[in-house]
Amino acid sequence: MSDRNIYLKTIPVLEAVAIAIAALDRATLVKPENIPVHEALNRVTSEAVRARCSSPTYHSAAMDGYAVKSDTTFSAREGLPLELIKNKTCISVNTGNALPDGMDAVIMIENIVDNGDTISIEAPAFPWQHVRRIGEDIVATEMLLPRNHTISAFDIGALLSAGIYDIKVHEKIRMTFIPTGDEILPFADRPTPSAGEVIESNSQVFRALALGLGIEFTATSPVRDREDLLVKSVETALNNSHIVVIGAGSSAGSKDFTSKVIKQIGTLLVHGIAIMPGKPTVLGVAKNKLLVGAPGYPVSAVVCFEDILTPVISWLSGKNPPEREKVQVRLARRTPSKPGMEEIIRLAVGKVGTGYTGVPLARGAGMITTLTKAQGFTRVPAGSEGIELNESVEVELFSGKQTLENILMHVGSHDNTIDLLGDILMGANTPIRLVSTHAGSMGGLTALKNDVALFAGAHLFDPESGDFNFPFIDRYLPNLDVTVINLAIRHQGFIVPKGNPQKITGIESLSDGKVNFINRQRGAGTRILFDYHLEKAKIDPESVTGYDREEFTHMAVAANVLTGTADCGLGIYAAAKALGLDFVPLAHERYDLIIPDKYIQDKRIIALIDLLKSDEIKKAIKILGGYEVPMTGKIMKPGMGLG
Amino acid sequence: MSDRNIYLKTIPVLEAVAIAIAALDRATLVKPENIPVHEALNRVTSEAVRARCSSPTYHSAAMDGYAVKSDTTFSAREGLPLELIKNKTCISVNTGNALPDGMDAVIMIENIVDNGDTISIEAPAFPWQHVRRIGEDIVATEMLLPRNHTISAFDIGALLSAGIYDIKVHEKIRMTFIPTGDEILPFADRPTPSAGEVIESNSQVFRALALGLGIEFTATSPVRDREDLLVKSVETALNNSHIVVIGAGSSAGSKDFTSKVIKQIGTLLVHGIAIMPGKPTVLGVAKNKLLVGAPGYPVSAVVCFEDILTPVISWLSGKNPPEREKVQVRLARRTPSKPGMEEIIRLAVGKVGTGYTGVPLARGAGMITTLTKAQGFTRVPAGSEGIELNESVEVELFSGKQTLENILMHVGSHDNTIDLLGDILMGANTPIRLVSTHAGSMGGLTALKNDVALFAGAHLFDPESGDFNFPFIDRYLPNLDVTVINLAIRHQGFIVPKGNPQKITGIESLSDGKVNFINRQRGAGTRILFDYHLEKAKIDPESVTGYDREEFTHMAVAANVLTGTADCGLGIYAAAKALGLDFVPLAHERYDLIIPDKYIQDKRIIALIDLLKSDEIKKAIKILGGYEVPMTGKIMKPGMGLG
Repeated sequence: MSDRNIYLKTIPVLEAVAIAIAALDRATLVKPENIPVHEALNRVTSEAVRARCSSPTYHSAAMDGYAVKSDTTFSAREGLPLELIKNKTCISVNTGNALPDGMDAVIMIENIVDNGDTISIEAPAFPWQHVRRIGEDIVATEMLLPRNHTISAFDIGALLSAGIYDIKVHEKIRMTFIPTGDEILPFADRPTPSAGEVIESNSQVFRALALGLGIEFTATSPVRDREDLLVKSVETALNNSHIVVIGAGSSAGSKDFTSKVIKQIGTLLVHGIAIMPGKPTVLGVAKNKLLVGAPGYPVSAVVCFEDILTPVISWLSGKNPPEREKVQVRLARRTPSKPGMEEIIRLAVGKVGTGYTGVPLARGAGMITTLTKAQGFTRVPAGSEGIELNESVEVELFSGKQTLENILMHVGSHDNTIDLLGDILMGANTPIRLVSTHAGSMGGLTALKNDVALFAGAHLFDPESGDFNFPFIDRYLPNLDVTVINLAIRHQGFIVPKGNPQKITGIESLSDGKVNFINRQRGAGTRILFDYHLEKAKIDPESVTGYDREEFTHMAVAANVLTGTADCGLGIYAAAKALGLDFVPLAHERYDLIIPDKYIQDKRIIALIDLLKSDEIKKAIKILGGYEVPMTGKIMKPGMGLG
Repeated sequence: MSDRNIYLKTIPVLEAVAIAIAALDRATLVKPENIPVHEALNRVTSEAVRARCSSPTYHSAAMDGYAVKSDTTFSAREGLPLELIKNKTCISVNTGNALPDGMDAVIMIENIVDNGDTISIEAPAFPWQHVRRIGEDIVATEMLLPRNHTISAFDIGALLSAGIYDIKVHEKIRMTFIPTGDEILPFADRPTPSAGEVIESNSQVFRALALGLGIEFTATSPVRDREDLLVKSVETALNNSHIVVIGAGSSAGSKDFTSKVIKQIGTLLVHGIAIMPGKPTVLGVAKNKLLVGAPGYPVSAVVCFEDILTPVISWLSGKNPPEREKVQVRLARRTPSKPGMEEIIRLAVGKVGTGYTGVPLARGAGMITTLTKAQGFTRVPAGSEGIELNESVEVELFSGKQTLENILMHVGSHDNTIDLLGDILMGANTPIRLVSTHAGSMGGLTALKNDVALFAGAHLFDPESGDFNFPFIDRYLPNLDVTVINLAIRHQGFIVPKGNPQKITGIESLSDGKVNFINRQRGAGTRILFDYHLEKAKIDPESVTGYDREEFTHMAVAANVLTGTADCGLGIYAAAKALGLDFVPLAHERYDLIIPDKYIQDKRIIALIDLLKSDEIKKAIKILGGYEVPMTGKIMKPGMGLG
């Protein structure tokens, strides 16, 4: 194992940040620079800023009207008008005009009677009435901004008003990212990857996160897995960066050179942080600059950026770290976690009833979509063994809390028509975001029982009654009043490679174990349907090769068939069609949306139902193929079956 | 009054937004465009996006180790190791490598014993262990993003991983801003304004706010107050903008052409909105584009942007409007408000004790610094007559809630040394923002009584005892335990023009009424000091010209003297020096910081006290001039006087 690294010791995130900060000398690393004020949005002052001019620089009329000397007006009152002579005892002014010499008040145009050469007033003017006095807003020389102040739009207005046109700020922090690895393809070449190849994307995630922090970012060309090449790249990058990030290669593989390279060029500070995902993060320092080994898995890389780099960059920039809005969220599912490590759990979060509920998403560090699907995340502390069902946890949100009001939480069976709903609902004047967690039809019922979703999609076939969904609702949701609305009738069948090489004709083709099947997870309506047909055909599940291999979506089943990992899977026509596969029909089934009556007046559900009743959705579903829409948008009743 | 406009009818903000949205046809106004995915941060999809490739595109090793066929390993257990032959029954893989044909599991490097040509394992591998299966993250053709989705850093990662390199988004909204007015000076000329002149800054505030929304912004050269010129500018701007804003000229003055111009070019929709500041906002439509008359006062202009333009721009962009985090804040002062109009009250907000407190700032629409000093604002509804002391109100924050934890709330007497403290405290590793509201020394004691500040600066001289602050603390804060720490001894005296033309030598010089005095507000320590010296010299306040004219800060007093509005005012040496004025000493006084004992262990107060004890602050105060620092940082006790 001589060619492998070992983790020195994983240390907690906050400690790692403190070590990095302690190793850098900010004052010499980050230089001040002079920039135009009107270009200074979100930049940070490097020294206090004092006003050059006052604002206003003169006593100015605050209203349109007539300037007067207030003590000449004291006799005016209602019924006893006082006459003032234009351009003599009163002078017409517009807002912003300088007060004429000797005058100290303005009478609003609405409060005078115009007599031609004179005006009449029926109330006295008090001194400085409707006058903006010199320096009312800003007094020359006063301190407008302290050092380390992040300049806002308003600050720009104040600075320009105070006659300040240039401002000293900290230079922007410059980060260079070096993607590494023999397997990665530069995205700029617009590749279509083959087995063993990965499109390099972490550099662009880092770039976007860096832009969000207002820093400068450069990505180099990818460097192959050779230590000497990496050393050269890092040394070059160090010349013009405050932070150099080596992408991937920070773990303990035989091609993971990051820690070696850091040791060669500078000092290794941290090898491994006590958080999942994100553990294989490496920190070092060279030439008073930060060297970072970022993990290769996308979610790990993001955690490295957000938990380690963001606080260090904020400190270098003279800012407090940006913060995410936090809400208390009730967890929809028991979520165990390995003690000894903090764990980041991504969650689909929405407002359900009066509170927020969160459905934990998949844990894999390689799944970037767990971040794109999540509204936020919770941290399971190192000392915890996880979170219980219905436990309330603090969630850090990716967007503001208000966003959650427009989220339509769905938990249930996966279907492509759900995505269609989600797309069209985003076209509304107030976009509604359908957040769908795939838990199978039974998972959807459980979610409704736990009151963590606004609706559940289900296609549960009951062999005994020949009906859909209602027998299961009666059994599993006896105390919940629900409305069941049909989304579509869909075709289920065997997804097989183009040309159907194994000549699968029906369920019987699976009985001899020669066909390599890929199954759906327990609780999925498709799994129940499969089991029903197996039983009807008197086929022992044990005899079906691959019966135990489970996927969670139709598309994943189809992808397995496409790539030859499986010969066949049960799924919907749309999935087969999308990947250009063949489809052997097995059955029609009813895919319904189950909506608790207590949410039927929720504005998001109203929007959903309106859409279900529209021609737009029927047309869109038909285009997918493999669906029938005779009952779409109609309220279902027990015993209706396929209509 | 024929040359004046009148407001048609002020209408509520939400109604004005709805009118603007109803008048625009978004589908034809905003075009889609194709852009590279890696440049798409914060852009908004114009149609749903589907994955081109799966991710991973192949079954890949999720760990460094050895790939195996799981069913060949079932016999392995602890104490009964199984030997596998390298490159035959097991193959070395690094994370990300494609799984060799026929293999379906990976054994982590940590869990094997390397024997050279073979490895030994003591536990079986289960199928798909440490394998990222094809499509685990993304399945080709699945919908990744719906329409009207704002693209995040994570989305960019997911899109690139799915082999998507271009994306269809809504074009950026383009806004053109036309500054108008004979009095305005283009900031680009770096002017020093004279009486009647104003530096144009609203265009740059709008620019910064527009950039914050991610839209494109152009400002034209300022246009003079001539209707024909304005018409021409607007028509030109309409060619390449979705929104044209006319800066200023939206009110009812004789030079306010905005509504006329809109009527000439298109249709006037709204003239006047029911909110203060912001009322003189004009909306119109021409060529299916939005025309806006923005008020000239900076705060009004900001309200126009945030309450009217931001929702319209968000809708045009396909987004929900951005939201500000909201907190409940206890109000530090009774704040009446005119019914019939919604009012925006800017507030200094900080965490004091366990809750948030807010001090209302000045109300003037012309004061941009009320926005730069505020942490947020509250809305007094149109039907309300205002807010009571200690009433809890909802405040919309300019930064996140966490920011408030680092705010050090000061209410009390104004002094330049307070600004120095604020500057230096921002230099800490965790910057502390000193937010100082100038309410005079007595106002500071009241603030402590109401528990709305962490400390108060005071320099209250008690003529009877010859002591500072303690007699007042005893009288007004009998039930509050406080620690009093000296900030500085400061020189108070008469601020007079350079050369002291009226030969003011002391308080007696004010007795004959020939000197035009400018006073400080009631409750200010300086006012009390002035009254004391008047009484000692037996001068009737009535005989002092300008006794009733009040300013709230030393710098404002000095500015009045500088510009000749007053001949003389009482203030500190630093203010005279800052404006190059002369100073006639009257007295020394002790400026102390009064800190409730209950906050003495607050981290922000600890940082403050540490600074007070440092040489750094003493040195900085001395540089200002007009201060002595023998007691700076020391705890004061009753009867110590000037030490």
